[in-house]
Amino acid sequence: VTSGTLQSVGLLARVLSARGIDRIAMEQPGFHIHRALLRRCGLTVVPVPVDGDGIVVERLERSGARAVLVTPAHQMPLGAVLAPDRRAALLDWAERHDALVIEDDYDGEYRYDHQPVGALQGLDPDRVIYAGTVSKTLAPALRLGWLVLPQRLLEPTLQAKELLAAEPSAIEQLTMAELMQSGAYDRHVRRTRLRYRRRRDLLLSMLAEHAPALTLRGIAAGLHVAVDLPPDVAEHDVVARAAAAGLRLNSLAPFWHDPTDRPGGLTIGYAAPPDHAYAQTLVVLAAALTQASDQTRFGRAVSTR
Amino acid sequence: VTSGTLQSVGLLARVLSARGIDRIAMEQPGFHIHRALLRRCGLTVVPVPVDGDGIVVERLERSGARAVLVTPAHQMPLGAVLAPDRRAALLDWAERHDALVIEDDYDGEYRYDHQPVGALQGLDPDRVIYAGTVSKTLAPALRLGWLVLPQRLLEPTLQAKELLAAEPSAIEQLTMAELMQSGAYDRHVRRTRLRYRRRRDLLLSMLAEHAPALTLRGIAAGLHVAVDLPPDVAEHDVVARAAAAGLRLNSLAPFWHDPTDRPGGLTIGYAAPPDHAYAQTLVVLAAALTQASDQTRFGRAVSTR
Repeated sequence: VTSGTLQSVGLLARVLSARGIDRIAMEQPGFHIHRALLRRCGLTVVPVPVDGDGIVVERLERSGARAVLVTPAHQMPLGAVLAPDRRAALLDWAERHDALVIEDDYDGEYRYDHQPVGALQGLDPDRVIYAGTVSKTLAPALRLGWLVLPQRLLEPTLQAKELLAAEPSAIEQLTMAELMQSGAYDRHVRRTRLRYRRRRDLLLSMLAEHAPALTLRGIAAGLHVAVDLPPDVAEHDVVARAAAAGLRLNSLAPFWHDPTDRPGGLTIGYAAPPDHAYAQTLVVLAAALTQASDQTRFGRAVSTR
Repeated sequence: VTSGTLQSVGLLARVLSARGIDRIAMEQPGFHIHRALLRRCGLTVVPVPVDGDGIVVERLERSGARAVLVTPAHQMPLGAVLAPDRRAALLDWAERHDALVIEDDYDGEYRYDHQPVGALQGLDPDRVIYAGTVSKTLAPALRLGWLVLPQRLLEPTLQAKELLAAEPSAIEQLTMAELMQSGAYDRHVRRTRLRYRRRRDLLLSMLAEHAPALTLRGIAAGLHVAVDLPPDVAEHDVVARAAAAGLRLNSLAPFWHDPTDRPGGLTIGYAAPPDHAYAQTLVVLAAALTQASDQTRFGRAVSTR
């Protein structure tokens, strides 16, 4: 049990270092907070591109890394699910390079359009480390996560954890155990999955109407969609218009190792507004997008100038 | 805000290391869990003896240390309060050696027989780091503590903390803030101070009756008393007799840097038993001590063999 996935990643960085592994591969774009912590823990982070099927495994071959951090359930931030052949290829890569795969099960609980995707860890428990969290299902404020580790890594990871002296609140751990044992946690996840799916559907309807030219990514799961922007649209302009209307959108820039050489894009999260405010939030978002589209070509009202 | 005093100590170990301070002095006997963590964080821990007035500051002079970890309110584990002249001497030592004093305010909330003792930190905020916790006042299960730092150490400590990725539960932090702001925390401490004082008084009455020859230490504060054992009494015998009666007493052995060369002693905690069981717990403790005293000279019924 850890203080969330970020701490899990930091602990594993220490364990990898102690085993002489100093290079870790990471998806590009990928979660910048994880990348920054891995670096501060002394690892070299090698970016490996993702496409619509998740991480491009063949690019791992030349990375020189003997560990990789992936988000197979819902790639953070673009939202691909790691395709079956990629899963097999990733585990094959790990086998051939005696490498470790860290599976950040990002958004694994919230898949809407297909069968749930199984964890990589179940396919190769000796090479895959599973990292779970309640940050999406309950609250990031709880700081509660967990690792499922190959047997040989259990003791080194516990020792690394002891050095942090960061045991999460025992009261919250016991509460979580009760939630899991009683089935209440499963019921909560199912209930919220339905709620978030409805929110996503409303968002997609609104975007189809007001910004039909936008390319959306990662809609099948999770709590946000990623949006591609055309090259001639300035992200900061869209973000500023939304902010002026009281909405925060996030640029994808921080997710890139080198933010100067990348396509434009945003994330639109749909989990945070309270239920009573969600419909109005979508109206405000539509207005912000429509205003922006007066000057761009991603909305219905594209300027003819 | 930290995950408790242990994490605070570990954070400061990292901050000291980064400032080139690799030797830290600690009270002897002193809290072994802190000592172990300081060592694992790479510091050399130098033992400095304590007497009835707390740490013997003149012995600090030859320690070569530029930092010291002390428990001035209620020395852990022997219970001395750091005497006024020692306080002055300690701060003078820190001034002359450009050293830092870490004040673990152990049991600072629970002083029974005198005026509350002020924090060292208030006397020299630029050299003394104050470490507080709710582990005694609310529950160690919460893992919630705090540091009051000299301004120049704030940023390095925050950076060291970020590397642990160990933010305590925000829900518990907010709850704690509400408890403090509303005055409920102060009321709770006052209420429990009275309750623990009554428990201590009952314990002292029982010991005076059943084990009058025992030397007690640290009775003026805290949640335990320390007990000197005569040289011919085996600690493990007393601990085993108590354990057989369902009571756990702790040897002072782990508190010594070198446990093979030290006087015998025990701690008797009086905070843990529930209220309804406390009187009966004392009866069981008295019986265990009386049985042990048949073979020793610390009880009333000393054997005449």
